[in-house]
Amino acid sequence: MIKVGIIGATGYAGGELVRILMGHRETEIKWYGSKSYIDKKYCEVYQNMFQIVDSVCMDDNMEELADQVDVIFTATPQGLCASLINEEILSKVKVIDLSADFRIKDVKIYEQWYNIEHKAPGYIDEAVYGLCEINRNDIKNARLVANPGCYTTCSILTAYPLVKEGIIDSDTLIIDAKSGVSGAGRGAKVANLYCEVNENIKAYGVTSHRHTPEIEEQLGYAAGRKLTLNFTPHLVPMNRGILVTEYATLRQDCFDAGASNIEKYEKIKSIYNKYYGDEKFIRVLEHGVCPETKWVEGSNYVDINFVIDDRTDRIIMMGALDNLVKGAAGQAVQNMNLVFGINEDEGLTMVPTFP
Amino acid sequence: MIKVGIIGATGYAGGELVRILMGHRETEIKWYGSKSYIDKKYCEVYQNMFQIVDSVCMDDNMEELADQVDVIFTATPQGLCASLINEEILSKVKVIDLSADFRIKDVKIYEQWYNIEHKAPGYIDEAVYGLCEINRNDIKNARLVANPGCYTTCSILTAYPLVKEGIIDSDTLIIDAKSGVSGAGRGAKVANLYCEVNENIKAYGVTSHRHTPEIEEQLGYAAGRKLTLNFTPHLVPMNRGILVTEYATLRQDCFDAGASNIEKYEKIKSIYNKYYGDEKFIRVLEHGVCPETKWVEGSNYVDINFVIDDRTDRIIMMGALDNLVKGAAGQAVQNMNLVFGINEDEGLTMVPTFP
Amino acid sequence: MIKVGIIGATGYAGGELVRILMGHRETEIKWYGSKSYIDKKYCEVYQNMFQIVDSVCMDDNMEELADQVDVIFTATPQGLCASLINEEILSKVKVIDLSADFRIKDVKIYEQWYNIEHKAPGYIDEAVYGLCEINRNDIKNARLVANPGCYTTCSILTAYPLVKEGIIDSDTLIIDAKSGVSGAGRGAKVANLYCEVNENIKAYGVTSHRHTPEIEEQLGYAAGRKLTLNFTPHLVPMNRGILVTEYATLRQDCFDAGASNIEKYEKIKSIYNKYYGDEKFIRVLEHGVCPETKWVEGSNYVDINFVIDDRTDRIIMMGALDNLVKGAAGQAVQNMNLVFGINEDEGLTMVPTFP
Amino acid sequence: MIKVGIIGATGYAGGELVRILMGHRETEIKWYGSKSYIDKKYCEVYQNMFQIVDSVCMDDNMEELADQVDVIFTATPQGLCASLINEEILSKVKVIDLSADFRIKDVKIYEQWYNIEHKAPGYIDEAVYGLCEINRNDIKNARLVANPGCYTTCSILTAYPLVKEGIIDSDTLIIDAKSGVSGAGRGAKVANLYCEVNENIKAYGVTSHRHTPEIEEQLGYAAGRKLTLNFTPHLVPMNRGILVTEYATLRQDCFDAGASNIEKYEKIKSIYNKYYGDEKFIRVLEHGVCPETKWVEGSNYVDINFVIDDRTDRIIMMGALDNLVKGAAGQAVQNMNLVFGINEDEGLTMVPTFP
Repeated sequence: MIKVGIIGATGYAGGELVRILMGHRETEIKWYGSKSYIDKKYCEVYQNMFQIVDSVCMDDNMEELADQVDVIFTATPQGLCASLINEEILSKVKVIDLSADFRIKDVKIYEQWYNIEHKAPGYIDEAVYGLCEINRNDIKNARLVANPGCYTTCSILTAYPLVKEGIIDSDTLIIDAKSGVSGAGRGAKVANLYCEVNENIKAYGVTSHRHTPEIEEQLGYAAGRKLTLNFTPHLVPMNRGILVTEYATLRQDCFDAGASNIEKYEKIKSIYNKYYGDEKFIRVLEHGVCPETKWVEGSNYVDINFVIDDRTDRIIMMGALDNLVKGAAGQAVQNMNLVFGINEDEGLTMVPTFP
Repeated sequence: MIKVGIIGATGYAGGELVRILMGHRETEIKWYGSKSYIDKKYCEVYQNMFQIVDSVCMDDNMEELADQVDVIFTATPQGLCASLINEEILSKVKVIDLSADFRIKDVKIYEQWYNIEHKAPGYIDEAVYGLCEINRNDIKNARLVANPGCYTTCSILTAYPLVKEGIIDSDTLIIDAKSGVSGAGRGAKVANLYCEVNENIKAYGVTSHRHTPEIEEQLGYAAGRKLTLNFTPHLVPMNRGILVTEYATLRQDCFDAGASNIEKYEKIKSIYNKYYGDEKFIRVLEHGVCPETKWVEGSNYVDINFVIDDRTDRIIMMGALDNLVKGAAGQAVQNMNLVFGINEDEGLTMVPTFP
Repeated sequence: MIKVGIIGATGYAGGELVRILMGHRETEIKWYGSKSYIDKKYCEVYQNMFQIVDSVCMDDNMEELADQVDVIFTATPQGLCASLINEEILSKVKVIDLSADFRIKDVKIYEQWYNIEHKAPGYIDEAVYGLCEINRNDIKNARLVANPGCYTTCSILTAYPLVKEGIIDSDTLIIDAKSGVSGAGRGAKVANLYCEVNENIKAYGVTSHRHTPEIEEQLGYAAGRKLTLNFTPHLVPMNRGILVTEYATLRQDCFDAGASNIEKYEKIKSIYNKYYGDEKFIRVLEHGVCPETKWVEGSNYVDINFVIDDRTDRIIMMGALDNLVKGAAGQAVQNMNLVFGINEDEGLTMVPTFP
Repeated sequence: MIKVGIIGATGYAGGELVRILMGHRETEIKWYGSKSYIDKKYCEVYQNMFQIVDSVCMDDNMEELADQVDVIFTATPQGLCASLINEEILSKVKVIDLSADFRIKDVKIYEQWYNIEHKAPGYIDEAVYGLCEINRNDIKNARLVANPGCYTTCSILTAYPLVKEGIIDSDTLIIDAKSGVSGAGRGAKVANLYCEVNENIKAYGVTSHRHTPEIEEQLGYAAGRKLTLNFTPHLVPMNRGILVTEYATLRQDCFDAGASNIEKYEKIKSIYNKYYGDEKFIRVLEHGVCPETKWVEGSNYVDINFVIDDRTDRIIMMGALDNLVKGAAGQAVQNMNLVFGINEDEGLTMVPTFP
């Protein structure tokens, strides 16, 4: 059994990690870290865990934790993991960080967008960006995995094959993203009260959201050059789910002159199949079916599809995932499975819940 | 492997059966029956099943089905199961009926409340009322299980121990129930449109809801005499979940004269523990914690608790469950497990999802 | 023009007062009090008021306010109004208090249920309980109006005629109430976050909610004797609205022996008509129609109806209102209209919004 | 008093017309047309109107109606108004058509996108496109007003000044729109059931939504040439509200070389002010404030704002309105006010409701 410690176990992502690991046959959770609830029974914080989890919450002591477990998940605010990590810890345990601390390779960009000093820049290079379907082999050998952001996972996976193959003009890429409220975390803020969010939709962080440079960096690797793009998140009145709608101009020179819409469709579809055809957790939908967040809720799936607009020569790509699963805890477990060499889908076979 | 056929696989309860059985290690679904979608791929009706279920929908042919499977679930409108059942079928397969056809022993009461003629009254006696925690032994030997209604399961289990032990005056029992919208099914009716239900709460079927006689009959068995009670359902703007709030007068002669609130609490708690202490799927909560539907969502749990009011000598009992799981498909699978002698919780260990 | 000052203008009830008074032709708001947002533009707190309200928020200075306005609304937490009120203020302005400070005549009961020392018990006697349809004449002459609670208004009005006429056994009265989330106020608490409330229903304050003694006192006046009853509030995932479902045993001696259900109905209906037939804001619905919160949303109406159950000899009464309008700000304006002798419905003719 | 007839009074837009006209001091509704509910009391269809509207529903007889009223609103499916309109009717009454029949000047485009034969192409030329803030003077003299679509009103008004002034490259315009569910109407379809829509977001009609050519045509007039653009609608789990997020490249030659972000902001802001500075119902928000649908709910306002992205040289424009008010019934009343020469805001001064 893999012994697991969680730092930040009482946030929404931490809670989802616990839910998923309860169904994982090769792990046991040894440490429910939660600075805010030390000594409180975990199931008093999350009553759904009554008679399932009997442990009490512990402090965020990474050193001690490193002696007791095989893998640490940090589901904590930005900066915490970087402030605690060190060589001794990494020599003893694997670390899967759900925060942004090790996602961005350029420390200046991290410090500028997050407005925080990075406390462990020396580990940025070593950290592997844990987008499993893209970096699977590197992840297998990682000591430190930077688990991608929720918006990021959805945004990147939706466009990745087309950027990689150069079939879209990446400079035209615009990502309009919509998220459920759990992405905002469990902090008590007026802006996240029921009555403020319910029956309402708004954009926020327009041109300035922190997931922007992460998406640009990763898609830049695919494109083979630096990219800038627009990323606009919106808050939607639902608990879970991210939907991205992405716009880009198709490079017409990639198609035969006079290619019909259906011929273009087939070519693009074959590109998606090339990258995702064997991926269990990425479902490229049938022609004409638009992804919906409800169809992936509670599961580790990303649903992707696209429509080609001959009138404007643009492609509209769409992707949907559950922000707490594939966008956070599910992908973290998938990364753990890769790191420990067990079945990649262990603990992750939850069928989406409907309705 | 137990071969399963589902009649009514594209309703919400049918869909939940499929979701649950996907995680059941000793069954395989052989027949997705759905009169409305014959020959359509199941995953085109429920897109969450894309790349998970590859079958097409079939007709509701119970005779043919009886030759191919070991158990048939009927998740269909009232009257259908009764109109199809016969000795030949029951000699070949087990039948677990999620409709009301075989729940009520008095056929006149059934016909009066459901306003339908019963087509197979001869099987009512044989049918076992599938409330697992109450009728476990009878279920094990049943050919035909009448799976209880969603409101009913919650209403009965919440009060059962106190009615059985006679510690409440059953004639004072009032059940105020609140349900999510999936209980209303997937039929296209104006009353169930998003805009009609959202931001709204109402009572309906006041004094006339069909689950009333079912609750009265079952609690009557516990009381050892006929009961009448008030049951008032309400529609709540949420997908899943039933909460019941039940009121009854405590029989003061059951307590020592001058017993304190906490002494009464302990006595009542010990009664709940006597009946449910060993039950995996019934969680009697800690003192002071009120059940919430969110804490059981997606799982087979029923959460129960109570408060004693010394000012009025009443007890307020509360129970919460997921109407599609313990209130329908989950309990149906639990019944199947009992009938086939496998672990009662097989396929039912889903941890409640939060948020 | 009546000059208005609001203390607590940035809470939800305060915001609703502003919305309503914007449509009132005989008032102007002179003071937007909000301790938390002093010097901030009101429309930056409530962006819906952009280009409608241009004022900035002021302190809660009741003395100064008394010199500037004709009426003060206090939409503040319990205790504040009582701590600020004095003879000089009441000699200058009318005060309509939306908190509980002057609702309960027995100061000991107030202090016990609210766990707070009453700072101005001397004014409790003078204060008029502002349930307009019941206490209209006293309100007209009041200096200090205790505006009723949201649950209370709905609970009392629904049962009042039957209690007053003695046609129900008041000792059997049970009130099961359901409220939208705005009733919980705008404070930043985890329990009121979107993800905690959404897709969830729960009871809370079972046997201990503070509106209980207020309901008991007022219905006790109607009954002519002290009453105790059960009141159980529930939190429903919607912004606005309260629905109460009330249960009581009908006194069979009030009906002719062998009276049919419809005869009983007519008798009860005539009692409701006697009290509410001329009331603009109380709508007793047609036979068979259950009140729904959506049908009164945004308006000052209370919708009421009832069903008689011959099987149990009980009556089920139902009432619905918008907790921020008839349950708070609307009733406060109705009280102001009465106090100042203008049309009772001025500013209150908003038609319910649907959907 | 202006006598009003409504055809389609029991749809959501029709119901909103009734709600708004109840507060309009210069109209009275003479005819509640509703083919589906002929002879049924209007308040039995919309119970919020109980004791407010006492009329029964009538047939859709436009000829007869023309003799009885001064203005007819047609809130009906596409094709109906065109099939009924004729010279005699237009010689007697003004017609404000809320359907798409007379919105698109090119009948071929109408027939292609709506897949319907136009029955009265002869009146397309005469019809005035009722976007009040743009076509005010023409509307004043119109006999037949084509009331704009909900998505269209929001999409056009948000970009109009920048397209008109040529400061954005109109060929780069991308409109990502999000709508509440009432926009889908009151028809009983599975796709609009509560459980299908709730906790879900999806795009639909991608590249093919019927509002696309309407937006293109109107913005084309502003640009002075034909435009094609991408318009992608999404369904959001809320009753009311449309939010559009629009992306376009700023024409850098319109700014001084090296202009700072704030200088660009001021220039764009002054353009918005030029067009909308005196408009009561269009609010261009303060710097940094993003429109939210909740801030305009129930009102006739459109809230607009924008952010300039120096990294990509794009501008992100955002607009929010209530689809049933400014997006349908409110704008229809605004058009009626213009046509009849009364105050443009009569009946339309509803303050947005929050929460």
